[in-house]
Amino acid sequence: MLLCDVGNTSYHFLDDLHDYKKEVNSFDPSSVKKKVFYICVNPHAKLILQMLENWIDLSRHVDKENYYETMGIDRIVACGTVANGVIIDAGSAITVDIIKDGIFQGGFIYAGLRAMRQTYKNISPVLDYSFNFELDLDKMPKNSQDAISYGYLKTLYCEVMSHKMDIFLTGGDAKEFAKIFPHATVDEMLLFKGMKKIMKKAQLC
Amino acid sequence: MLLCDVGNTSYHFLDDLHDYKKEVNSFDPSSVKKKVFYICVNPHAKLILQMLENWIDLSRHVDKENYYETMGIDRIVACGTVANGVIIDAGSAITVDIIKDGIFQGGFIYAGLRAMRQTYKNISPVLDYSFNFELDLDKMPKNSQDAISYGYLKTLYCEVMSHKMDIFLTGGDAKEFAKIFPHATVDEMLLFKGMKKIMKKAQLC
Repeated sequence: MLLCDVGNTSYHFLDDLHDYKKEVNSFDPSSVKKKVFYICVNPHAKLILQMLENWIDLSRHVDKENYYETMGIDRIVACGTVANGVIIDAGSAITVDIIKDGIFQGGFIYAGLRAMRQTYKNISPVLDYSFNFELDLDKMPKNSQDAISYGYLKTLYCEVMSHKMDIFLTGGDAKEFAKIFPHATVDEMLLFKGMKKIMKKAQLC
Repeated sequence: MLLCDVGNTSYHFLDDLHDYKKEVNSFDPSSVKKKVFYICVNPHAKLILQMLENWIDLSRHVDKENYYETMGIDRIVACGTVANGVIIDAGSAITVDIIKDGIFQGGFIYAGLRAMRQTYKNISPVLDYSFNFELDLDKMPKNSQDAISYGYLKTLYCEVMSHKMDIFLTGGDAKEFAKIFPHATVDEMLLFKGMKKIMKKAQLC
């Protein structure tokens, strides 16, 4: 049995205790013969997976009552793992969700690291810098790399910190973002924990 | 005589009191026969303009001592117009600069409206929404359009407001951003005012 979290960029698998990723654009999910319990936010992959008998969509077992209709299933599953806090899932998109006493309070969607780097580059070749995660967030920048890094990171930091709650970081870029949220709990397996919780409740394991 | 602020997207002209724009990609600056005093941040346009005798680069008359080397000339010129405040220039990129007692304190670069809308769309077709500038910034979103609008607008708002200073809004999207910064002074002619100030100091007019 495998667990799989399908995002916009990759299939993230968990096989017992080991996790690994496959590129959405090149991976053929029909090559997996084991039973796979999955969640999926990728519209194209969704169409393929629903035709595969051994791929079981966990979303149908999720209680979505406290969430909004178009909310990504990955966010809903992550929200089920925390009673109080801000959950930041730093993937292709960065989702930021607030949970109080186990109830979803709302959330927002920020652009992911790679997408944002491309955005600055597209605006002008003079903005083609990697982000400096070692940036001093308390100081207004006086060079181009820090000016775009601050624009991308400090604005997010400012909003997240305003909630004054514990922060839980997951997703492929969790370790990068842990540099600006040093007190956050980093858990790259958060989604899988949420999926296991749903499977237990639905008596699927 | 004309003034012209050349950005990444357009040539913004001022002819006496009337301003108008021409697309960077299609406009031929050699078609202008009048004397033009200009500033330019567009690397490609820069190369063309320096070959035209009637186009006079104002940047050589700007005192850049208090600014950093790679800082856009438009930001430097805007900073010269305000003694105390946050200047937000909402164009292809959004620049946010802090001035205290006439001295530049630093600034950052955020992605512009069009670039950011494209970014969300590129991440996933399910994030292809226009931004809702009427959004309640005090409420965590519970729908997709507000989730991306909040991600883009509230994060910027949060950082800008943290400086507790007067806000000056300029650039092509100034009026849109005035919806989330209702107490800001909107002045789409701010760059031209800065250019005139430089011309006076250099006795060019």
